[in-house]
Amino acid sequence: MRIEVIAIASEILSGQVLNTNATFISQKLRDKGYLTYKHIVIGDNEECIKEGILKALEKSDLIIVSGGLGPTLDDITKRSVSDLFHSSLIFDEVVAKDLRTRFQDISLLEEQMMVPDKAEIMRNHIGTASGFIFSERNKHVLLLPGVPHELQAMFVESALPHIEKHFPLDEPIYSLNLSVSLLSEPKIDQVLRKIQMMNETVQIGIYPRLNLIDVTLTAKKKEDLEPLAQELKKELKTYLFEEETIERALHEELILSGETLAVAESCSGGRIASRITQMPDCSKYFLGSIVSYSNEMKERALGVEIGKDGAVSESVVLQMIKGIDEMTNADFSAAVSGIAGPNGAEKEKPVGTVWIAFKAGGKIYTGKMQFSGDRNSIIEMTANFVFASIYRLIKYQAEPEF
Amino acid sequence: MRIEVIAIASEILSGQVLNTNATFISQKLRDKGYLTYKHIVIGDNEECIKEGILKALEKSDLIIVSGGLGPTLDDITKRSVSDLFHSSLIFDEVVAKDLRTRFQDISLLEEQMMVPDKAEIMRNHIGTASGFIFSERNKHVLLLPGVPHELQAMFVESALPHIEKHFPLDEPIYSLNLSVSLLSEPKIDQVLRKIQMMNETVQIGIYPRLNLIDVTLTAKKKEDLEPLAQELKKELKTYLFEEETIERALHEELILSGETLAVAESCSGGRIASRITQMPDCSKYFLGSIVSYSNEMKERALGVEIGKDGAVSESVVLQMIKGIDEMTNADFSAAVSGIAGPNGAEKEKPVGTVWIAFKAGGKIYTGKMQFSGDRNSIIEMTANFVFASIYRLIKYQAEPEF
Repeated sequence: MRIEVIAIASEILSGQVLNTNATFISQKLRDKGYLTYKHIVIGDNEECIKEGILKALEKSDLIIVSGGLGPTLDDITKRSVSDLFHSSLIFDEVVAKDLRTRFQDISLLEEQMMVPDKAEIMRNHIGTASGFIFSERNKHVLLLPGVPHELQAMFVESALPHIEKHFPLDEPIYSLNLSVSLLSEPKIDQVLRKIQMMNETVQIGIYPRLNLIDVTLTAKKKEDLEPLAQELKKELKTYLFEEETIERALHEELILSGETLAVAESCSGGRIASRITQMPDCSKYFLGSIVSYSNEMKERALGVEIGKDGAVSESVVLQMIKGIDEMTNADFSAAVSGIAGPNGAEKEKPVGTVWIAFKAGGKIYTGKMQFSGDRNSIIEMTANFVFASIYRLIKYQAEPEF
Repeated sequence: MRIEVIAIASEILSGQVLNTNATFISQKLRDKGYLTYKHIVIGDNEECIKEGILKALEKSDLIIVSGGLGPTLDDITKRSVSDLFHSSLIFDEVVAKDLRTRFQDISLLEEQMMVPDKAEIMRNHIGTASGFIFSERNKHVLLLPGVPHELQAMFVESALPHIEKHFPLDEPIYSLNLSVSLLSEPKIDQVLRKIQMMNETVQIGIYPRLNLIDVTLTAKKKEDLEPLAQELKKELKTYLFEEETIERALHEELILSGETLAVAESCSGGRIASRITQMPDCSKYFLGSIVSYSNEMKERALGVEIGKDGAVSESVVLQMIKGIDEMTNADFSAAVSGIAGPNGAEKEKPVGTVWIAFKAGGKIYTGKMQFSGDRNSIIEMTANFVFASIYRLIKYQAEPEF
């Protein structure tokens, strides 16, 4: 079977927003063993919508469409797709009653209560736009609203069960994901070329994401994956993690060990804290972060005295780590101070220079890293480096490598 | 002219990563007046690549392809597209010399020095994969590497100038973006329906993003936009901002006013600091954030005593704002404490309850908000609310509305 995910969203085509819906849908499908064949983004206009869906119907069996279901004047998906399936819009009492109960304070439009007579309705418990399922000759078109948290809830609650019921998997495809931190792509590629020789039928994908690299092994037989994964683990040992993000790997280890973590951030500007606190239950180990962006705040909050070497120096990260350690008494702590750019470079301190300190088991480690890329990449790489180093400290007692 | 942006990326189809490259490319194109017709994501396999590009060539004039240009074993874009254009790969001395100069410590593969004989080369100053331009009968296919910061640099330096030279715009399309904070979609829709009546030829797009809403006006005549924009500004006054993000709007105001900002975060977990520090030059006004995730850290870093009402209470945000204000003496400060979920709800404090305090001009404002959605949405909405409220305080002396 072929699955296409179509977003009807001029705001994605204009570069204003990312297509997070396609990513979410493909991720959930993959968790159930379904592979997405194609993602498409087309504009909010009737001709594009009709043409896009008709083309997808030629080759694909399941088409998941998001966007353009709201009540506002540019929302035309419902009417366009109803036309394609020769379906009329009719007023639905059940939808109307539900909307009037849930949204007493906001003005509702009748458009929100109109549904295509030939479609199955997917209920939206959060927002006002219902979802719809059209099916004809074993081809199914699912329409979901574009608002991400509404789409997510409805996809899991209604769309996935429908897909599993109508498209049972006969020949599932198995995949296994591993990620590597702190090593370069050519180094990893050498290892992958070696393990590819063990079994040519396993497909190996390699996806660099800043200073992390994801490796995906895909095979039609589940038992083909494990030998290659074992060899990979043997070769790359402490640099490997299996969770979807490096902060998630660290999170699991800290929850397991019952130990605590605190950070003192300067150039990373709260990104380390923010990536950790995105995960539910991080309060079990995460005590907090002092984001001291000004020199004065470094002094007041952490007791740092900035000396002749300036704020980006070993002396400052040493004082920062002592400051956060004294304040929180965390089992693990990290401190970073660097130049995220594009401005602020100094002689012998180019953009991307980051001093980093760790404290673990009474020992302090410091070192200087040189990252490259734009401001956001440097901040992300700093956070990745901190997460990977603490993860290796906890899981393998491996000292940080600068 | 029609433009398609194709990503060759199984990792996007599997839901592992977002298609940030397409967003970046479309944004840059739009800044120059070009609209993207379609985004497509297809898998890393020769048949899909060839079929996808051939199909795009039928309808489109310019096809921008990213991904699969690296030296690793799943990188097959260069060979597949060269085949389509009957081009052979030849060893390139200039590329080889450049790579050997820039990458002395890593092992290079000869594959990285091979280029299609019929393509123009786009140089990559950051990574190892060159980009290529194929053209035939006024149709152009551009190949760029998938690594985002490499693609970004090459797109701006080489691809955009090529596009502007070969596809000069004869009938540009003008657009104007405005965003609205703190108001609901139906409220804004009423206003939009009214302004649509002023000129039916202007296309109006409305894109909700959590508790912010983007409005785009598009027209073929530039002078058609301004009257509608003026009316919108008159109707929505202090809730409107023109920058691409609300933190950017706040950033510009703070740089203009020369005033400073500090925050104390609990449930937002560093997201407020992180979104601010993503912007270069924020150090001109941003002093820092105390991310106090544990109760003990709230006490130690900010002097908070948690009373009978618990950590999510007016009393705690009042003490947090006093703590951060005493530490930094910032012109504007904010403090937040809430329940981002999915766990941690209490009686009369459901998930999404967030207490917020602001201090400005010697006055303190506190209030409770009730946000809905998943953990990430609640954190983002909290940050959006804080940014929008401080923006209105600075720009319009409008008090926060809880």
